[in-house]
Amino acid sequence: MASYDTIIRGGTVITAADRIMCDVGIRDGRVVALGESLGEARQVIDATGKLVLPGGIDAHVHIAQPSGEGIVMADDFESGTRSAALGGTTTIMPFALQEKGCSMRETLKAYHAKADGECHVDVSFHMIISDPSEQLLGQELPALVEDGYTSFKIFMTYEGLALNDRQILDVMSVARETGALVMVHAENYDAIRFMTEQLERGGRIAPKYHATSRPIAVEREATHRAISLAELVDVPVMIVHVSNREAMEQIRWAKDKGLTVLGETCTQYLVLTEKDLDGLGMEGAKYVCSPPPRDTASQDACWEGLRNGAFTIFSSDHCPFRYDDPQGKLTPKGKTSFRWVPNGIPGVGARLPILFSEGVSKGRIDLETFVAVTAANPAKTYGLYPRKGTIAVGADADIAIWDPGKRVTLTHDLIQDGADYTPYEGREIIGWPVLTMVRGRVVVEDGALIGRKGHGIHLSRARSPYAKRGFEGRAQP
Amino acid sequence: MASYDTIIRGGTVITAADRIMCDVGIRDGRVVALGESLGEARQVIDATGKLVLPGGIDAHVHIAQPSGEGIVMADDFESGTRSAALGGTTTIMPFALQEKGCSMRETLKAYHAKADGECHVDVSFHMIISDPSEQLLGQELPALVEDGYTSFKIFMTYEGLALNDRQILDVMSVARETGALVMVHAENYDAIRFMTEQLERGGRIAPKYHATSRPIAVEREATHRAISLAELVDVPVMIVHVSNREAMEQIRWAKDKGLTVLGETCTQYLVLTEKDLDGLGMEGAKYVCSPPPRDTASQDACWEGLRNGAFTIFSSDHCPFRYDDPQGKLTPKGKTSFRWVPNGIPGVGARLPILFSEGVSKGRIDLETFVAVTAANPAKTYGLYPRKGTIAVGADADIAIWDPGKRVTLTHDLIQDGADYTPYEGREIIGWPVLTMVRGRVVVEDGALIGRKGHGIHLSRARSPYAKRGFEGRAQP
Amino acid sequence: MASYDTIIRGGTVITAADRIMCDVGIRDGRVVALGESLGEARQVIDATGKLVLPGGIDAHVHIAQPSGEGIVMADDFESGTRSAALGGTTTIMPFALQEKGCSMRETLKAYHAKADGECHVDVSFHMIISDPSEQLLGQELPALVEDGYTSFKIFMTYEGLALNDRQILDVMSVARETGALVMVHAENYDAIRFMTEQLERGGRIAPKYHATSRPIAVEREATHRAISLAELVDVPVMIVHVSNREAMEQIRWAKDKGLTVLGETCTQYLVLTEKDLDGLGMEGAKYVCSPPPRDTASQDACWEGLRNGAFTIFSSDHCPFRYDDPQGKLTPKGKTSFRWVPNGIPGVGARLPILFSEGVSKGRIDLETFVAVTAANPAKTYGLYPRKGTIAVGADADIAIWDPGKRVTLTHDLIQDGADYTPYEGREIIGWPVLTMVRGRVVVEDGALIGRKGHGIHLSRARSPYAKRGFEGRAQP
Amino acid sequence: MASYDTIIRGGTVITAADRIMCDVGIRDGRVVALGESLGEARQVIDATGKLVLPGGIDAHVHIAQPSGEGIVMADDFESGTRSAALGGTTTIMPFALQEKGCSMRETLKAYHAKADGECHVDVSFHMIISDPSEQLLGQELPALVEDGYTSFKIFMTYEGLALNDRQILDVMSVARETGALVMVHAENYDAIRFMTEQLERGGRIAPKYHATSRPIAVEREATHRAISLAELVDVPVMIVHVSNREAMEQIRWAKDKGLTVLGETCTQYLVLTEKDLDGLGMEGAKYVCSPPPRDTASQDACWEGLRNGAFTIFSSDHCPFRYDDPQGKLTPKGKTSFRWVPNGIPGVGARLPILFSEGVSKGRIDLETFVAVTAANPAKTYGLYPRKGTIAVGADADIAIWDPGKRVTLTHDLIQDGADYTPYEGREIIGWPVLTMVRGRVVVEDGALIGRKGHGIHLSRARSPYAKRGFEGRAQP
Repeated sequence: MASYDTIIRGGTVITAADRIMCDVGIRDGRVVALGESLGEARQVIDATGKLVLPGGIDAHVHIAQPSGEGIVMADDFESGTRSAALGGTTTIMPFALQEKGCSMRETLKAYHAKADGECHVDVSFHMIISDPSEQLLGQELPALVEDGYTSFKIFMTYEGLALNDRQILDVMSVARETGALVMVHAENYDAIRFMTEQLERGGRIAPKYHATSRPIAVEREATHRAISLAELVDVPVMIVHVSNREAMEQIRWAKDKGLTVLGETCTQYLVLTEKDLDGLGMEGAKYVCSPPPRDTASQDACWEGLRNGAFTIFSSDHCPFRYDDPQGKLTPKGKTSFRWVPNGIPGVGARLPILFSEGVSKGRIDLETFVAVTAANPAKTYGLYPRKGTIAVGADADIAIWDPGKRVTLTHDLIQDGADYTPYEGREIIGWPVLTMVRGRVVVEDGALIGRKGHGIHLSRARSPYAKRGFEGRAQP
Repeated sequence: MASYDTIIRGGTVITAADRIMCDVGIRDGRVVALGESLGEARQVIDATGKLVLPGGIDAHVHIAQPSGEGIVMADDFESGTRSAALGGTTTIMPFALQEKGCSMRETLKAYHAKADGECHVDVSFHMIISDPSEQLLGQELPALVEDGYTSFKIFMTYEGLALNDRQILDVMSVARETGALVMVHAENYDAIRFMTEQLERGGRIAPKYHATSRPIAVEREATHRAISLAELVDVPVMIVHVSNREAMEQIRWAKDKGLTVLGETCTQYLVLTEKDLDGLGMEGAKYVCSPPPRDTASQDACWEGLRNGAFTIFSSDHCPFRYDDPQGKLTPKGKTSFRWVPNGIPGVGARLPILFSEGVSKGRIDLETFVAVTAANPAKTYGLYPRKGTIAVGADADIAIWDPGKRVTLTHDLIQDGADYTPYEGREIIGWPVLTMVRGRVVVEDGALIGRKGHGIHLSRARSPYAKRGFEGRAQP
Repeated sequence: MASYDTIIRGGTVITAADRIMCDVGIRDGRVVALGESLGEARQVIDATGKLVLPGGIDAHVHIAQPSGEGIVMADDFESGTRSAALGGTTTIMPFALQEKGCSMRETLKAYHAKADGECHVDVSFHMIISDPSEQLLGQELPALVEDGYTSFKIFMTYEGLALNDRQILDVMSVARETGALVMVHAENYDAIRFMTEQLERGGRIAPKYHATSRPIAVEREATHRAISLAELVDVPVMIVHVSNREAMEQIRWAKDKGLTVLGETCTQYLVLTEKDLDGLGMEGAKYVCSPPPRDTASQDACWEGLRNGAFTIFSSDHCPFRYDDPQGKLTPKGKTSFRWVPNGIPGVGARLPILFSEGVSKGRIDLETFVAVTAANPAKTYGLYPRKGTIAVGADADIAIWDPGKRVTLTHDLIQDGADYTPYEGREIIGWPVLTMVRGRVVVEDGALIGRKGHGIHLSRARSPYAKRGFEGRAQP
Repeated sequence: MASYDTIIRGGTVITAADRIMCDVGIRDGRVVALGESLGEARQVIDATGKLVLPGGIDAHVHIAQPSGEGIVMADDFESGTRSAALGGTTTIMPFALQEKGCSMRETLKAYHAKADGECHVDVSFHMIISDPSEQLLGQELPALVEDGYTSFKIFMTYEGLALNDRQILDVMSVARETGALVMVHAENYDAIRFMTEQLERGGRIAPKYHATSRPIAVEREATHRAISLAELVDVPVMIVHVSNREAMEQIRWAKDKGLTVLGETCTQYLVLTEKDLDGLGMEGAKYVCSPPPRDTASQDACWEGLRNGAFTIFSSDHCPFRYDDPQGKLTPKGKTSFRWVPNGIPGVGARLPILFSEGVSKGRIDLETFVAVTAANPAKTYGLYPRKGTIAVGADADIAIWDPGKRVTLTHDLIQDGADYTPYEGREIIGWPVLTMVRGRVVVEDGALIGRKGHGIHLSRARSPYAKRGFEGRAQP
C-alpha cells in the first residue's frame, strides 16, 4: 500500500523521451510512483497546467575558485547554489582546481570544506588538472576515480593552467586506464598570446578586443587537436563550451569517424554576440568570457548542434565576477588591458529560463530535448544516472515545476547570485520554474528561497558510460 | 486507491530515455502506475531479471495486398499479426493500396473488411497513392486525413505504381495542405527498366541479377529527387527502407540543410547482402526485395544511421511470398527472369529479435535506441503517441517482456508467418521476447500464441508532429 | 629557313600554362614559330604592351534555331559570328536542333546551309537530340560521330525537348558506344511546370517570376540525376550553364567519387542576379534565361568553381531575342505570362570582355585560367585541340590581341549581335580585344569588322579525350 | 635571322598545358625559338618519337646537412646533383639548416661554400628556421628575402628543430611582412614522443615501429594546426610531404574556405607502404622517413590529390643515408631503437622515372600534369618562373628528353646518388629520361654523366606569386 510524503498532482511529467500526464509520488526524498491518481499524501502540490521536469543539472560551474591577481570570484557555495535553485537547477558540478605543486586530494578536501553545510542544491566536483606530476598521474588520480571523482578537466589555454600536448596525452592515458572522462577547454594558448600582444602593441586594449584576440580559428584548432590527441589514446573526450559552427563541425566530423567525442554549448553562445563586448566605456567587460560569444550565425549553429546531437550537454559555464568592484572585472590592472579582465560571466541561475524561453517557447527545440541537454544527458554523461537526471521510480525527487506560459523580465534580482549584474538583464522570458525540489524537499517556491542552506550534499559518481577503461599496462599503442 | 488488473513485477522498464527498475500497474488495458512496489493485482507477472519494453511498432508492413500476375501475398491479417505478436510487436502499420481508377475510401473499406476480427495485434493503415486523380487529391485525401489516415505512401518505381515527378508534387501539396506525412519508396523506375533490359538482353536472368538491376546509384538518385521535390513544396518526407551509405548521406545532408527529412532502415539491410541472392539454383529468389541488400559496408552504414539519427525508424518492410508455391516467388513467369519475381521478403516476426541480438547484445546500439527506433519513434512519427510507443502512465499496456540472455536459433517455426521460409533461418539470437501483451492482455507467452484473433483493433491516428499544415490556398510558392 | 606571312611582334603570349614574351610567326593560317626575334614578314603586327591570347572558343551558342510560337531568334550566322569576332572569339559551337520526327542528318544539312558562306569565325555544331528514335540511336548517331559531330546535347526541361530518364539513358548508351560527349541542360521539367502553374494561379506572371519558377533545387536535382544516370552507363557528362553553389557541389562530389563529370558556367551567372529580372514593367524579360541568374553568393560560387576546376568551360549560352519586337521577348502571348517569354539572352560578344574585366582585371582569376576556360579547355573537351585553343607551333593562327588596360563602357553598339540590347549595357570594362585573327587573317581591328563573311568554316571534330568508347555489345551492365 | 647553338628536332614538346610537335632552338643557354623547322645549328639533337620536357625541379631535397649523433648524410652537392641529372632533374632546391644560435646568413655562406663548383644542375636554397631569435626575425630574414632567399621551412617535430606555435606565428608574421613563402613539416612532436615512449616501454623497437609511432592522426593534426596558424596571420602556407587522405582533406578544406594553402606529396607516398618498413632483420630502416609511407588507400589518395589540385608540387624529399655504414641508418644507437634511425630516404634520381612510369604510363595522370607538378608548379611557386619550369621562348634551356616506351629495371646503379641503396630497387619502369640538358649544355646522355661538375649555379629567386606581403607594421590583426 503506497503512502507518500508528497504527491505532485495533475502536471505533465517530461523526460528526455516522454510527456506523461500523471501524479508523482515521493517518499524519503525519492520518486516511488508515477500514477494516474495516486491518492493522498502529507503534502500535495498542485501542478495542474504545469510541466514537471527533472531538476536541471549544471555540469559546468565555477564556484569559489582562486583567481589570482587580487581578483575574487563572486560566488561561494551558498550564493552559487541559491542562484541555481532559483533557476530550476538541483545539481551543480563545480570544479576543484589543483594549483601548481598541490595535491589533488588536498585540493578536494579544501573545496569540500568550503561547500559542506553551505549548499542549497546537490554538488559534485570535477577536478581541474594543472600540474600532471608523476605522483598525481600514477597515484592520486586512480584513487580519486575509485572514490567517485570520475571526470578530469584540462585547459589548452590560460597562463598557469594550459597543459602542453604531452601533458594532455599523459592525462588522457590515465583517464583511459581508470575510466575517467576528460573535459577540454579548447583554445590555443600560444595563438591567443600572439594575438593579444599584436593588439596591445597597436593600443587595442578595450574589452571588446578580448573577442578579437581569440577568433574562431583559435578554438577550432584546439578542438581538432584535442580530438586528435584523444584519438591517439583511444579515449573519449568532452569538448566544453563550444561557441561556433567550425568547432561544432569538428565534433560532428569526429563522431562520423566513429570517435567518442562529446560536445557542450552554453547560454552565452545562444544569445550573446561579440557586439555585447563593445559596450560603452568598459562595460564590455561584463561579457568577457572564453571562448567569446561570436555572431548570430554562430548562434544558429549552436542551436543546430543542440538539435542534431553535436552537443550532448547544455551548461552555464557560470564563472562570476563583480563588475563594480576593484576585486572583480576591473581591477586596476584589468583597466589597462582586456588581457587582465578575468574571463567568465555568471549564468547558473539564468541558464534554464533562457533555454526554455529561447528554445522551447520559440520552437527551436522540443521539451524532450530541453530535458535531455539540461538534465538527463549531464546525469548520464557524468555518472549520476539513474539517481539524477530524470523523473522515474527510484530516482531522487529533484524536480522543477515550470509554468510554460509565465512571462518574466529577467533581472539580477531574480537570479541572486553573488555577482552584481547578469549579462542577460532585461530579457523577456516566457516560461519560468515556479517550484524547485531537491530530494523531495521544496527549496524554492514562487521565486523565494524557502529551504535552508546545507540541504545540498556532495555526490560521488560512477564512471561515465562513455568512458573506456583498462588499457593493459600502458604499453599501448 | 490503486487496484490493478495486472502487475508486471520486478523487471527493468526501458523507454527511449530511461531504464527503471519498477513494477508496472495495468488496469483496463492501460498502464496506470509505475511504482516501487505496487501491491496486489488479479494477475501478477514476474519479470525479475527481464526487460520490460514497449511492444514493437512495425511501421512498414504489407499484408494481403493484391500482387497481380497470379501471385498471392502469403499473409492475411490473422497470420501477419500472429507473427508480429510472436516477435514482440504489438502494432503493425500495413498499407491500403489504391488500385488505378479506384476510390481510396472504398479501398480502405475493403482492407478494413479483411482485417476486422482477424488481428492479434493492433493495426493502423497507411494509404498507397497510385492514381492521384483530381477527385482523390481534392476531396478524398483531405477527408481521410481528417478521419485519422494521416500518412501517404508513394512509389518512384514499379509498373503501375510509380508516380512521375509532377504527380509526386501534387500528392506532396495535398500532404502540405492537410498535414499528412509522405512516405517515399525511392528508386528510379526508368533506370531499373533500362538496367533490366540490358541484363535480360545478355541472358542474365537469375534472381541474383535483381540486385544488379538496381544499384546504389538508382536508390541514391531517387532519394535526392524525393528530397528535392519535398523541398520545393516545403513538406516533410520519410524515405523508407534505406539500404546504403550514399542514400543515407542524402538524408543527413538534407537534415543539415534544415529540411525535415526522415529515414527508415530495415532488418534486411543490417544482416543480408547481395550475396544472399546468389543462392544455388533459384533459391536467391527468397531474398529478392527492393532495394536489394548491398554489402557489409552498407550494413555498417545502416547501423551508423541508426546511431546518428539519420534513421528515425526501424521496420521490417514485411512483404511475404511463399517460395515453394507457383503463386509465390517462382510463378512460371518468375522462373523466366528476376524481373517477374515478386519483390519482398517476410520479416515482421524476425525484426525485433534480430535487431536486439545484432544490435543490443552485440553492443552496436543501446537499449534506449532499440526502444526509440522500434516503438517510440514510429508512434511519434505517425501520430500514435502517447497512446503507443512507450511504457508510461496513460499509455496502452502494449508490452513485450524480453529475456536478454535467452539464446535461440531462429527458424521459421518460431516466426509462424504465412510464408514458407524466413530469410534469417538458422541465425543464432541472443535475447528473445518471452511475453507479448496487447492492451493489457497477454497474447504470446513463452513462444505460444495464447490470445485469440480479433483482439487487435484499428487505430485512427493524429497528424504527425513533423507534418506541416495549411499552405494557404495552394497559391504557394 | 623561316619566312612568314605575318609576325605578331613584341607581345606577351599567354597559354593555359605560360606567359611568354616572344614573336609569333604565321604562315598559311597557322602558327609556325614562336621566337625571340623572328625577322621579317609581309605583315607585321605590333603587340608591344599587349597580350596575345588564343582566340576564344564559345562552346555554347544558339544561332538561327527555330523557336516556335511566332518567335524568331535574333541572330543568323553572319550576325552571330560577327559579334563573336568583335568580342575576341574565333570559334563558336552552335547547336543543330533535331525537331521531333526529323532526321539528324537532314537537320545538320539544313544548319550547314544556313551557315555556309556566312561566317566570320569558325563554327562546329553540337547536335541536340529531341527525338531519340531507334533509327536515330542505332544508325544516324553512330555515323554522325564518325563524321566528326562528336557531342550530343540533351534537355531535361522544355516542352517538346525534355527527354525522360529512359531516353537519357538510351542517348548516353549511344554516347558510350560511339565515344561521343553528352551535354546536359539540367533542370527538372515537372517541377518547373508545377511551380509555374502555382504562380500563374496566384496571378504572379511578371518576368521576375521566371526565376521563382525554377529555384536552385530544381537545377540541383536535375544535376544530381544527370550525374547518376551517367554513372549507371559509365559515360562522361558535361553539365552546362551551372548557376549556383548547390549544383556546383554536385559536380565536385561526383569528381571526388571518381566520375568523369564536367561543368560549364556562363557570363550571366557571374554578373547578373535574380534582381535583374525585376525590371520596371516588362523589362525583366531582357534577362529571362534558364537557369535564371541567382544571387551574389551564387556568383561567388561560380567564380570559385572557375578557380577550383569544378567548371572546365566558360561559355555565353548566347541565345538572342529582340526585346522591342513582337517576334522577340514579348510576343502577345509572352506578355501574358513569364511562361511564354523565350528563354535566352545574347552574350557571344560580351563573354570575353566581361570575364577579362571582372575576372582578370579584378584579380579573381589569372590570365592562364582565363585562357584555359575560354579557349584551351573548350578545344580539348570537344575534340578541336591541338588545332584550336592555344598559341603553339602547328595550331591555327586564331588569335586575339588584348589591351589589358583599355577602358571601355560596354554598349550594344560594340557587340553588334542581332539582338537590340545587351544585358550588360553600361558596364565599365577594363581590358579589351583590339584585334581578332582567324586562321591568320585579321577579321577585327580596333573594334571594326574588317574581314568579309565567309572566311569562317565548319570544323569536324575528333572525339573528346574525356569520352569513353566501346561498350561491347550494349550487354553491359 | 636566327642561328642556334643547338636544335632539338622532331620531338613533342610538353608544357603544363600543351603538346606541340616542333623543333626547339637554343642559343646562349636559353630557348630562343620553337618552330616547325628551324633550320641548322652547330648541334642537332634528334628527338623523333621522343618527348621533350622541361627539366625537373625537385623542390624538396636535403644535401650535406649535419645530422648529429655521428650520422653523416650520404650526399654532397656533387653526388646529389649527379643523381638529379641522371633522373632528368635540372634544378634542385636543398635546405640551408640554421643551427641553434647561428646566423642564417653565415649558415647560407657555409652551404654555398659546400655547393660552389660542385653542382651538375642548378641549385637554389630554402632556409630552415630552427632558432627564431629577434635578430633573425627582425633583421636577417628580411634582408635575405630581399637577396632572393624567398622561402622558409619550419618543423613541427624533431628534437632541436620543432618550433612551438608561438614561434611558428612569429616566423609566419615575418613571412607575411616580407613576402616569403612558409613550408611546414607537419607532425605533432609531443604526440610522437609520447607514442615512441609507449612503444619503447613495450619493447617495440624495430624499424617498423617508426610507422606505428607517427600515425595519420599525428600528421593530420599538425596539418590542421599549421593551416590554422597561417589563417590567423593571413599568410599562405605550403604543407610539404603529405602522405595520406586525411591530411590531404585538410588542405582541400582550407582551399574551399578560401585560404591559400598549398600541398606537396612525394614519391614514397605513391609507391611505398608501411609494410616496406617491416623488412627482415633491420632492413626496414632503409624505408624510415617521416611521415612514414602508409597503405594503398593512402597511395590512392595521393594520386587523387595530384589530379585534383590538392597537391601543387611533387618532390622527392631526398634525404640520403647509407644503410651498410655505422654512420648511416644503423649507428650503434640506431640499432637500439627506431627512435635513433635517421629519418629520410634517397630519391632525387628516382622521382621522375617513378612518377612517369606509375603515373603517365599507367594512365593515372596525363603528361601535362606530370610537367605541372614536377617542373612548372615548383618553378612558379618558388619564384623561379619563367626562367625555369617550362619550355618557352626566353626560358633557360633546361630540358629532359624522355623515351616514353623505354623499359628499365630500376637499380641503384642507374641512380648513382651517395647512398648505397635505393628504396625503389628492382621496380620495372616504362619511360626514361635519355638526355638531360642544363642551360643548353647536355649533362647526361643515355644514362651517362657527360657534363663536368661546376656547371650548376645557384639561383636567386623572386617572391612566390602566392605570397602576401606588407602587413603594415605588424600591428595586425
